[in-house]
Amino acid sequence: MKIYQVDRAIVSTNRIASMDHKPLLLVRERADGTPMVAVDAVGCKPGDWVLCVGSSAARDATGTKAYPSDLTIVGIIDNWEG
Amino acid sequence: MKIYQVDRAIVSTNRIASMDHKPLLLVRERADGTPMVAVDAVGCKPGDWVLCVGSSAARDATGTKAYPSDLTIVGIIDNWEG
Amino acid sequence: MKIYQVDRAIVSTNRIASMDHKPLLLVRERADGTPMVAVDAVGCKPGDWVLCVGSSAARDATGTKAYPSDLTIVGIIDNWEG
Amino acid sequence: MKIYQVDRAIVSTNRIASMDHKPLLLVRERADGTPMVAVDAVGCKPGDWVLCVGSSAARDATGTKAYPSDLTIVGIIDNWEG
Amino acid sequence: MKIYQVDRAIVSTNRIASMDHKPLLLVRERADGTPMVAVDAVGCKPGDWVLCVGSSAARDATGTKAYPSDLTIVGIIDNWEG
Repeated sequence: MKIYQVDRAIVSTNRIASMDHKPLLLVRERADGTPMVAVDAVGCKPGDWVLCVGSSAARDATGTKAYPSDLTIVGIIDNWEG
Repeated sequence: MKIYQVDRAIVSTNRIASMDHKPLLLVRERADGTPMVAVDAVGCKPGDWVLCVGSSAARDATGTKAYPSDLTIVGIIDNWEG
Repeated sequence: MKIYQVDRAIVSTNRIASMDHKPLLLVRERADGTPMVAVDAVGCKPGDWVLCVGSSAARDATGTKAYPSDLTIVGIIDNWEG
Repeated sequence: MKIYQVDRAIVSTNRIASMDHKPLLLVRERADGTPMVAVDAVGCKPGDWVLCVGSSAARDATGTKAYPSDLTIVGIIDNWEG
Repeated sequence: MKIYQVDRAIVSTNRIASMDHKPLLLVRERADGTPMVAVDAVGCKPGDWVLCVGSSAARDATGTKAYPSDLTIVGIIDNWEG
C-alpha cells in the first residue's frame, strides 16, 4: 500500500452510474507530488495521512463489491509526519 | 484514479472484435505528457479534464463486462485547471 | 492503453505450454525506449503503430481466455506518426 | 516480486473492517526509498530483507482470501545485504 | 511482457506455505538494474535472457492456479544480446 496526504474533495457530477455517490478525494504522496484521486472508504479530512490500496484490491475495499476504483483509502495513519 | 486531459479521438479500424465500437480518446496528464488511450464511458470532448480508472476496474467501468480496457474515463471533473 | 511501435518478432522456443504458438512481437514506445514483448492478437508488421492493453485485460484480449499475457496488441492505429 | 527492507510497524487505528488486525509494516527498497506499507504474512522484524508480492496475488497471500492488500510480505530472504 | 537476464537463485527458507518449493530467481533488466525476484516456470540458468509476465497472469503461469506470484519466467529468448 502507499501513503498519501488528503488534499481536498473533488467533484465529478458527470460520472458513470456505477460510481454512485462515494466521496472522491484528491491525494498526494508529497506536497509537490502528482495529484491522484482516491475513493474514501474511511471518512477522512484534509491533511490526514492515509493508507491507500490499489490494484484489484481497491475495488472491494470501497465496501461495494467490484466498485470501479483502482485507489481506495483504507485507513488513517496514526502519528505520521510525512 | 488519475486525472487526464482529453486531446482528441483516435481511430483504430483494424482492432480485435471484442473492442467493438466504443470511442477511444487520446489523453495526457500534462500538455507534454506521454499520450495514453482511454475508453470513453462518459461522453467527453477535447479539453475536458477527466477521471480515469485503471487496473481490472477499467474493464467493467466501460459498461461492458470484462471489456479489454486498462484505462477508462469514468467522470468529467468539475472545476479543474490542470 | 499504451501506444507502441512494432520492431520485430521475437522467438522463445523454450516456453511454457500454455503460451502455445501465439506470435510475440518486440515493441517500443519510442525508438530509444525499453523493449517490451506483446502478444499480437491483430496481425501486425514491423513499423506499425499499435494499441496495447495491459493488466488483467491483456489475458482475454489474446483470444484465448486467461492466456498468460500482461501486454497484448489489440489494434493498429490509423494515421499515427509517433 | 520485489525486495524490501523492513523499517518498523505502522499503526492505523481507524481502518476499514475487512483489514481486521493483520500487522502492517513500513518497508523500503533502499534506505532513502519511498516508504511503502506491506501486510506481514510471515512474522518479520525490523532490518529483515523480505520478498513482497503485489498485484492481485497480494490479496490471497495474506492468508485471508480477497484481503484488501496490494503488497504482502511472503518470505524473509536468507543472506541478503541490500 | 518484460525481458530480464537471470542472475542467480535466491533462497527464502521462511516463506508462506502456499509458495511451496518453486524456484525463485534474481533477475535484472540491465546489469545495473534493480533486482527483481521471479518464479521460474521454465528451468533457466544464470545468464539466460528470459521473458517474464506480470500482473494477474503471473499467477497461473507458474503452473499452479492462483499461485502467489506477480512475476513469472515463461520463456527463454532465443538470440538476445541485451
